[in-house]
Amino acid sequence: MSKNLLQNINSPTDLRQIPEQDLPQLARELRDFIIDIVSVKEGHLGASLGVVELTIALHYVFNTPEDLLVWDVGHQAYGHKILTGRKDNFDTNRQLGGISGFPKRSESEYDTFGVGHSSTAISASLGMAIASNLNGNLDKNHIAVVGDASIASGMAFEGLNHAGVTDANLLVILNDNAIGIDPSVGALKNYLTSVKEGKNPRQNNMIKSLNFDYSGPIDGHDIFAVIKELRRLKNTKGPKFLHLITTKGKGLEQAEKDQVKYHAPGKFDKLTGEIIFTSEENLPPKFQDVFGLTLLELAGKNEKIIGITPAMPSGSSLKFMMDAFPKRAFDVGIAEQHAVTLSAGMATQGMIVYCNIYSTFLQRAYDQLIHDVALQNLPVIFCLDRAGLVGEDGATHHGVFDLAYLRCIPNMIIYSPMNEIELRNILYTAQLGLNHPIAIRYPRGRGEIMDWKKPFEKIEIGKAKLLKKGSRIAILSNGFIGTNVIPALAEIKNPHDFAHYDFSFVKPLDENLLHEIFKTFENIITLENGTIKGGFGSSIIEFASTNGYLIPIKTLGIPDEFIEQGTVEELQKYSKIDPKSLKNTFESY
Amino acid sequence: MSKNLLQNINSPTDLRQIPEQDLPQLARELRDFIIDIVSVKEGHLGASLGVVELTIALHYVFNTPEDLLVWDVGHQAYGHKILTGRKDNFDTNRQLGGISGFPKRSESEYDTFGVGHSSTAISASLGMAIASNLNGNLDKNHIAVVGDASIASGMAFEGLNHAGVTDANLLVILNDNAIGIDPSVGALKNYLTSVKEGKNPRQNNMIKSLNFDYSGPIDGHDIFAVIKELRRLKNTKGPKFLHLITTKGKGLEQAEKDQVKYHAPGKFDKLTGEIIFTSEENLPPKFQDVFGLTLLELAGKNEKIIGITPAMPSGSSLKFMMDAFPKRAFDVGIAEQHAVTLSAGMATQGMIVYCNIYSTFLQRAYDQLIHDVALQNLPVIFCLDRAGLVGEDGATHHGVFDLAYLRCIPNMIIYSPMNEIELRNILYTAQLGLNHPIAIRYPRGRGEIMDWKKPFEKIEIGKAKLLKKGSRIAILSNGFIGTNVIPALAEIKNPHDFAHYDFSFVKPLDENLLHEIFKTFENIITLENGTIKGGFGSSIIEFASTNGYLIPIKTLGIPDEFIEQGTVEELQKYSKIDPKSLKNTFESY
Repeated sequence: MSKNLLQNINSPTDLRQIPEQDLPQLARELRDFIIDIVSVKEGHLGASLGVVELTIALHYVFNTPEDLLVWDVGHQAYGHKILTGRKDNFDTNRQLGGISGFPKRSESEYDTFGVGHSSTAISASLGMAIASNLNGNLDKNHIAVVGDASIASGMAFEGLNHAGVTDANLLVILNDNAIGIDPSVGALKNYLTSVKEGKNPRQNNMIKSLNFDYSGPIDGHDIFAVIKELRRLKNTKGPKFLHLITTKGKGLEQAEKDQVKYHAPGKFDKLTGEIIFTSEENLPPKFQDVFGLTLLELAGKNEKIIGITPAMPSGSSLKFMMDAFPKRAFDVGIAEQHAVTLSAGMATQGMIVYCNIYSTFLQRAYDQLIHDVALQNLPVIFCLDRAGLVGEDGATHHGVFDLAYLRCIPNMIIYSPMNEIELRNILYTAQLGLNHPIAIRYPRGRGEIMDWKKPFEKIEIGKAKLLKKGSRIAILSNGFIGTNVIPALAEIKNPHDFAHYDFSFVKPLDENLLHEIFKTFENIITLENGTIKGGFGSSIIEFASTNGYLIPIKTLGIPDEFIEQGTVEELQKYSKIDPKSLKNTFESY
Repeated sequence: MSKNLLQNINSPTDLRQIPEQDLPQLARELRDFIIDIVSVKEGHLGASLGVVELTIALHYVFNTPEDLLVWDVGHQAYGHKILTGRKDNFDTNRQLGGISGFPKRSESEYDTFGVGHSSTAISASLGMAIASNLNGNLDKNHIAVVGDASIASGMAFEGLNHAGVTDANLLVILNDNAIGIDPSVGALKNYLTSVKEGKNPRQNNMIKSLNFDYSGPIDGHDIFAVIKELRRLKNTKGPKFLHLITTKGKGLEQAEKDQVKYHAPGKFDKLTGEIIFTSEENLPPKFQDVFGLTLLELAGKNEKIIGITPAMPSGSSLKFMMDAFPKRAFDVGIAEQHAVTLSAGMATQGMIVYCNIYSTFLQRAYDQLIHDVALQNLPVIFCLDRAGLVGEDGATHHGVFDLAYLRCIPNMIIYSPMNEIELRNILYTAQLGLNHPIAIRYPRGRGEIMDWKKPFEKIEIGKAKLLKKGSRIAILSNGFIGTNVIPALAEIKNPHDFAHYDFSFVKPLDENLLHEIFKTFENIITLENGTIKGGFGSSIIEFASTNGYLIPIKTLGIPDEFIEQGTVEELQKYSKIDPKSLKNTFESY
């Protein structure tokens, strides 16, 4: 097959010059292009492969960027990026200074709304559609492409519920592949499956109940069928809903077979599809696995233990407990609000609930955390994975606000383990009974300790500890980022000047030790993997202020701006919390 | 009619002794009791009157507190409180030291889950039901009573979506009266109306699509019918859904007729139902009306202006704009998440969106604020009503966390007007174009300025101002709470020692003025109507720390605990931010 169609497409205008009968070839080329690059540069694979035909059809039929297209979540938008002028720098995807892994307004006029977190597309598109009506643009189309995992989230329902009573020119396309990152769950998913299987006739339709013009289900890989239906819908006013059936990973055999693994497979052989094996034998564990394996161990000993994840069984490693104790471990789908209040309900009945939510996604359940958990002082154990800078996923996904937004909530215990053993031991300690909710935040990626499966030890709540003695300056670090202090101090001229303390607890603070520190040292430096504004450092200067200690305090952490994508190391450097920047800071004292 | 049945009921056990045929009389007595007390003591009226029969039937049929009953929102739980041992202190409802206006776990074993914010009951009950199964309590019943406004919220959908795939012994009772605080909205509401009108046969049922055993709709005021159906459902396992039709305000003619006004009517004549008129002629305006009337005025001049409220057209006073410009003012229902992202979508199309959300409810849309608005730096104008201590609604409703949870978000402008004119002028200034999102937070209740409708003046962003000169100590106050400083300084011996600055902007801070202040004064005192941890005061000590000012700073605000109900004045006193406490604090310098 001659590869030449994609080569000449630099925008949807070029695309629209291609005869319709050639589009299947373009689809093959676009798939190959995505596979070529992602196999080497890594990234989200399966979702984009699943919407190749839809992506081409949308830009072929609709007048983008005048017609406004919003991709929900955005994992699936690689084809969209390639067709809208970013083919030549697609190899910089997710890199520092490169293009974002998600649609992003500042990157292209075709990216009408920045995404990353799920289930926002319907609300955003509806807002655009209402605005278009008010602006007199009555022929403008507004399209939200939403996956079946995302549409089950409450926010998407809120959008549908509103859209159904408007005359907005909104087309919601359900990209139904029965999987998010992990397989979809819930009653709506079962209902959609029954629709696909023809068990629910069109006229008995839940979406129609919400006053949408429903069409489908149709095969999302039949590009001619999709184009035909989009053309029809383009000329239909009001809220419309198209149900497409697609296959995640379409066109790469292994990716179709193992859809969870090929969501973001890392490097793979682009011809065979085989993932390029990296031995993990000599690597310390991922924090998520320390969570997953430790919880598995604890759950085996205590049948009151429950595990909950909103749609991240693989990412959180809760899957270990789900496999071993399926009755006590729950994937509730993309439903963070529900996950938290469900946990609270269980806790009232004496269950010991580990609710694992990525730090950035706990933002979705902030009210539930305050109103349903902390206010009632229910001892739910929040495990916040991906806290701090997460790397390539970028600005939408960094878990940098949690210390600030949690610290103002009464009754909370907030703990950031410095290493795998501390994580393991706090998970153990939490199920002994704390009489308070606790948030345990730990980073994406691996720790530094190989031999982490030590006998459990109880952690004393609110206790900080001295890691290294020093004479003049005290460094107070919170969590794993504190490991950057060690190489920094190893390289400076005056290491004896610096004491280093591990303040894993942001709340309660170890005030006894703080009094001692403030009475002893001339200078204090705080370090955290979170926003400087309102975070751990802020809690230390609040302590100093409350207690009248007039000592200079320097707070190191994430500056007051949204941090883009890059490797964790690059982003730490940008934020001046990498070992080398720390060394420079320390040497300036 | 002899009033004697209620008199002898101190618990559901007593209730269950009454012959079924006497229950209508008890319902009348319970209504009268609620009306008697609420007419004098004030509180939420309409919702509780609407569920009198349901309340009696639930405690009559089910074995509470063994069977677990959760009232969603909790506005409607007065009958429940009266029947479960709180009849004799019901006259302390919503008062300092009295019983809470909402179900509260620490108050009674019959209050199985604390509520206040809407749409939590299904998730909480499901958690309890799953726990009961695991604990071997297979015959336990779990009942969530949810209004039709609440069930349209995304969180409720998430709960239903999960419950439908469990074998949990959960009964969801939809209390469908077609109204929340204001009339319900949305496609689901229209669907429910069509069900009530018999236009959707049972077999074509949205709730059934989610795998619930659906029954109804039945008349929620026919106590015998309700009891009969509850008895049937009690013996049905798995997720069940009962659709009840009720009338908000049932039994008080005026309350049935004007359901919005009688949601919480204040004092009224218990015989005639007439609201006891209090002249507002000599009172300064409510902040909400300054918002509502100013927006109306601005919207008349600028057709890009949009108003959005999630279910609070009356409470926010957005109703003024909704009446005058119905195409540009939207009540989206209890859907804070959607409200915020809808606003963001509109803002991308050049609309000037005023999104009015009570401070406590913005907690529901925290992620949307970060991810959809601030990250994209969209200039949405958030108007946070009921910020700070709200009084009688108590711990669930105080808007005290916003400064802390907003301050860590990049790109945000945060402003607390000190008075009605500042509120008016910031609303004016915001539509001139700020290039950033702004949060304007203002308190519940009235200001102090009668003559507030002055010509508009533009406010300089990030500018603080000197209100009173002084020599030694600088008081930096944020927002309306700063008015408490004035009487406090008027009464102390050494007023000339104190300067007073209005720092309405928490972000950006007026750093120029701060440098001046820190170079001039010996002591700094900050004052805010929000949590001390992480709030405005914290931003000032961060500034001092960053800039090396080693001056004592005292931060006054809400302490690190959940504050209960009481009058605003009582709660300010408790938090030591009332004029008298301030005076004492100032005098200690």
